[in-house]
Amino acid sequence: MMTTKIPTPTIERLCSIYHILEQLEENKTDAVSSVELGKQLGINANSIRKDISFIGDIGNCRAGYSVSKLKSHLIEKLKLNRKKATCIIGLGKLGATLLNNERLLESGFGIIAGFDSNINKIETIQTKVPLYPANEITMIVKREKIEIGILAVPPQAAVESAKRLVAGGIRGIVNFSSAIIKPTQGVCVRNVDLVGEIRIVSAMSMILKETVS
Amino acid sequence: MMTTKIPTPTIERLCSIYHILEQLEENKTDAVSSVELGKQLGINANSIRKDISFIGDIGNCRAGYSVSKLKSHLIEKLKLNRKKATCIIGLGKLGATLLNNERLLESGFGIIAGFDSNINKIETIQTKVPLYPANEITMIVKREKIEIGILAVPPQAAVESAKRLVAGGIRGIVNFSSAIIKPTQGVCVRNVDLVGEIRIVSAMSMILKETVS
Repeated sequence: MMTTKIPTPTIERLCSIYHILEQLEENKTDAVSSVELGKQLGINANSIRKDISFIGDIGNCRAGYSVSKLKSHLIEKLKLNRKKATCIIGLGKLGATLLNNERLLESGFGIIAGFDSNINKIETIQTKVPLYPANEITMIVKREKIEIGILAVPPQAAVESAKRLVAGGIRGIVNFSSAIIKPTQGVCVRNVDLVGEIRIVSAMSMILKETVS
Repeated sequence: MMTTKIPTPTIERLCSIYHILEQLEENKTDAVSSVELGKQLGINANSIRKDISFIGDIGNCRAGYSVSKLKSHLIEKLKLNRKKATCIIGLGKLGATLLNNERLLESGFGIIAGFDSNINKIETIQTKVPLYPANEITMIVKREKIEIGILAVPPQAAVESAKRLVAGGIRGIVNFSSAIIKPTQGVCVRNVDLVGEIRIVSAMSMILKETVS
């Protein structure tokens, strides 16, 4: 099957658009313009239209895109309706939060395993999700055909954990540790640095201040 | 003072570059090329060079940019060395993790207040950071001249919390809730949706699979 490769930044923005559409649907809004979407994402309306055109011609009315139509289109093209077996590595505060996250489940990410190098933690955490020691990552990922791995480990454990996931045949890694995981052949990686996100807002606000004064 | 406005996506990428430089410095790497930086960020080398050119001519050697020089340049231009009083709204698992985060402190974000609508939580959480009830947000932000607010509240409390921060004169908001906060005049907002980040990796891995097969 021939498909056009969608560039990563476009996928990122399409997923952000999807998030906005979810909110609009909750607020019973029927239509949204590229100008409004652009304003919410801090990019111009032209880029929004270009991104959306990547997933084919969905048409638009005077008031903009139909919220429900655009959402269904994104679900189809980005395969958001496909359930993906997911696991969490590292059961500290962040990992434990994600373990029982309802929105994750609703979004199709069934957490089917949790891992930690600390056996005590595995034995004491209250959850319905099966928990395993970290040295079983590769085996369990392979056996359970887990596709997405979420890293919530300390930075010094991130690279080793990622290697174990890759050895088990993982398809995508979301890394919430401050270490940087490099993508390898056939595995998508997203490094999400929480402190980095705060740094971006700080830099933006400093530059805004300077430009205004 | 005249300054060129740096576009938001450029600031985002410059902050990501800063994060990579921190790691390279830890690994005692002296120089890095735009090709290598691009590879790590999933964008092309040309965009990297264009982004870096926004902060002025920093020169580069045969091996690429000097890690330490580029890092100092970013610190200066993005004002990363300026300490910023920061507060956290919502002291659930994520908020409590951030409350005592050493990397935040090292990065210049001194957490000087925490807020929660649950008085019990304020009285029981163990921390050196002063904690207050959520209805004092505006007053404390004003009094302590807090510049950055981190939202770790449930989505239904996000908009109200953001309004209180803005009323207190906040300059930047990092929103980790799943609600979307719209930027207002003079206030930078960054909506970081953790589930959305996982969705991006999932979409990327699905599209990669389809392109390969």
